[in-house]
Amino acid sequence: MLKKGDLVSFRPDIKVLDCTMRDGGLVNNFQFTDDFVRDLYKMNIKAGIDYMEFGYKADREMFDESKFGKWKFCSDDDIRAIVGDNDTDLKISVMADVGRTDFKRDIVDKSNSPIDMVRVATYIHTIPSALEIVEYCKKKGYETTINIMAVSKSNDSDLDDALEIIGHSCVDAVYIVDSYGSLYPEQMRRLASKYLECGEKYGKIIGIHAHNNQQLAFANTIETLTMGVSYLDSTVSSLGRGAGNCPTELLLGFLKNPKYHITPVLRFIEKHINKLKEEGVVWGYDIPYLLTGRLNQHPRDAIQFTTDKRTDYADFYQHLYDKDSF
Amino acid sequence: MLKKGDLVSFRPDIKVLDCTMRDGGLVNNFQFTDDFVRDLYKMNIKAGIDYMEFGYKADREMFDESKFGKWKFCSDDDIRAIVGDNDTDLKISVMADVGRTDFKRDIVDKSNSPIDMVRVATYIHTIPSALEIVEYCKKKGYETTINIMAVSKSNDSDLDDALEIIGHSCVDAVYIVDSYGSLYPEQMRRLASKYLECGEKYGKIIGIHAHNNQQLAFANTIETLTMGVSYLDSTVSSLGRGAGNCPTELLLGFLKNPKYHITPVLRFIEKHINKLKEEGVVWGYDIPYLLTGRLNQHPRDAIQFTTDKRTDYADFYQHLYDKDSF
Repeated sequence: MLKKGDLVSFRPDIKVLDCTMRDGGLVNNFQFTDDFVRDLYKMNIKAGIDYMEFGYKADREMFDESKFGKWKFCSDDDIRAIVGDNDTDLKISVMADVGRTDFKRDIVDKSNSPIDMVRVATYIHTIPSALEIVEYCKKKGYETTINIMAVSKSNDSDLDDALEIIGHSCVDAVYIVDSYGSLYPEQMRRLASKYLECGEKYGKIIGIHAHNNQQLAFANTIETLTMGVSYLDSTVSSLGRGAGNCPTELLLGFLKNPKYHITPVLRFIEKHINKLKEEGVVWGYDIPYLLTGRLNQHPRDAIQFTTDKRTDYADFYQHLYDKDSF
Repeated sequence: MLKKGDLVSFRPDIKVLDCTMRDGGLVNNFQFTDDFVRDLYKMNIKAGIDYMEFGYKADREMFDESKFGKWKFCSDDDIRAIVGDNDTDLKISVMADVGRTDFKRDIVDKSNSPIDMVRVATYIHTIPSALEIVEYCKKKGYETTINIMAVSKSNDSDLDDALEIIGHSCVDAVYIVDSYGSLYPEQMRRLASKYLECGEKYGKIIGIHAHNNQQLAFANTIETLTMGVSYLDSTVSSLGRGAGNCPTELLLGFLKNPKYHITPVLRFIEKHINKLKEEGVVWGYDIPYLLTGRLNQHPRDAIQFTTDKRTDYADFYQHLYDKDSF
């Protein structure tokens, strides 16, 4: 097994990306109060986080603005209302989904935008479309990443081909994304080894975005970072779709770089996270998510099950199992 | 890294030990209803679990019986009232704590007892006392284990010495116990490697008992089992002291032996676990446990913090941090 770094030193190549609002926005339709967003921005600065992802650059023609909070669209003006000129070390990122963004209209020259990085989320069969967005954003002056979603559903040879194409592109970083939270550390290390080989060959940074369906988001994140993965996605208290993500408070507890501070995160949780829960926003590890994760399925059925406040786990498991059978 | 087995086959040497009542008893003072215990027993049989631990063999002279449920004492009669002659493949275990058990009075010949295995919990400095209990129980006909608690506080050379002594004893199995939930997979693998070396040399089985303070109980369990650890402790829905343990439902989702079935566990959760929660029994991963785990401290302060319904996490962290400083 590859090993980069150890448990008492730190690697300066490691960057933490807070995607609380982006993945968390999938839970509450991006309905965050300005107070929440401002405090999260301040928290990230104090905690030494490297990137803060505000949300998506979604196409307003495609999604009804009245049904979502503004962070589904992340206009430069809305970001600027929070960060001003962002005269800090914290960089700003947004995500663009292949097929759901009018990037040519909505992504302007970096010199006129508070955004530093555009992350492009794609399935493996839409990588050429992802690369089109990447090339465009790169020319506009942004850092870029490609996040290949649902990699647990891809076969090895398709993934090899995908990484070759991506390797030849101008993208800065490639993410391993365990969308369904179905991958065990052993599988994650195998994937990380493949991605890191591509990264080594073509000079690409490798990142990880984990989901917590099997309580493995943190473990998978630190296991792959130990091998050399360096961009780490996390969210405060796991806030994110379904079972949520790698918790920032656990990740910062592990990292040894003295720039990272856990106390601002704890204060943010005190003020905002318990309140969100009391307001009825529901996310995080629970039995239905374990079941979709274990079966390598999209969490949508588990989200519905949870929304319906059902607890007939055994019948639900049978339903999921039958979906994929024969 | 050692590797035994793979992700599509199974190892017959692997045994799952349900310690829901034993570790869970530390949460509710062993106040389980007979209905709960009977259903758990039936669940374990149907799920293919290998051992069910009923609780402790605690000394009735030392502990006030009126303050605890009967499973703190696990009389043979109380066990028999649940299991009869236990004419099943499920074996019964109890735990004896060094210094808290009158084993010579309370542990009778195996031929007259429904118990199959006695597990002896010890700190590293009381191993001679643990071995006294082990030798006694072995002579009485029981399977035995030694569970060295709080191993994250031991230094390497003491642990080497301890494993040598244990290796020369008649004990069947030795457990890695992460009492404080402070160990990362990388450290767990290092420990497992050390224990497995001893096991190889002296013909001892190696087991793992993990805690979930950093959401690593499941990850640490499957990582060490992949290396050759074969006795795996788990509890239904993590029920156990503080952050709880490796969840049985996750573990059975991982194991490939067709004898294991997850559905009985899901049904038990439906019926009993949500009810326990509604009744106000509190356990499982939460910020205060992450903090004691991260600082390699006993969870007692976190348990108190949680009982007091406090949420001033940052101040609590400062308090824990100061305790260990200068």
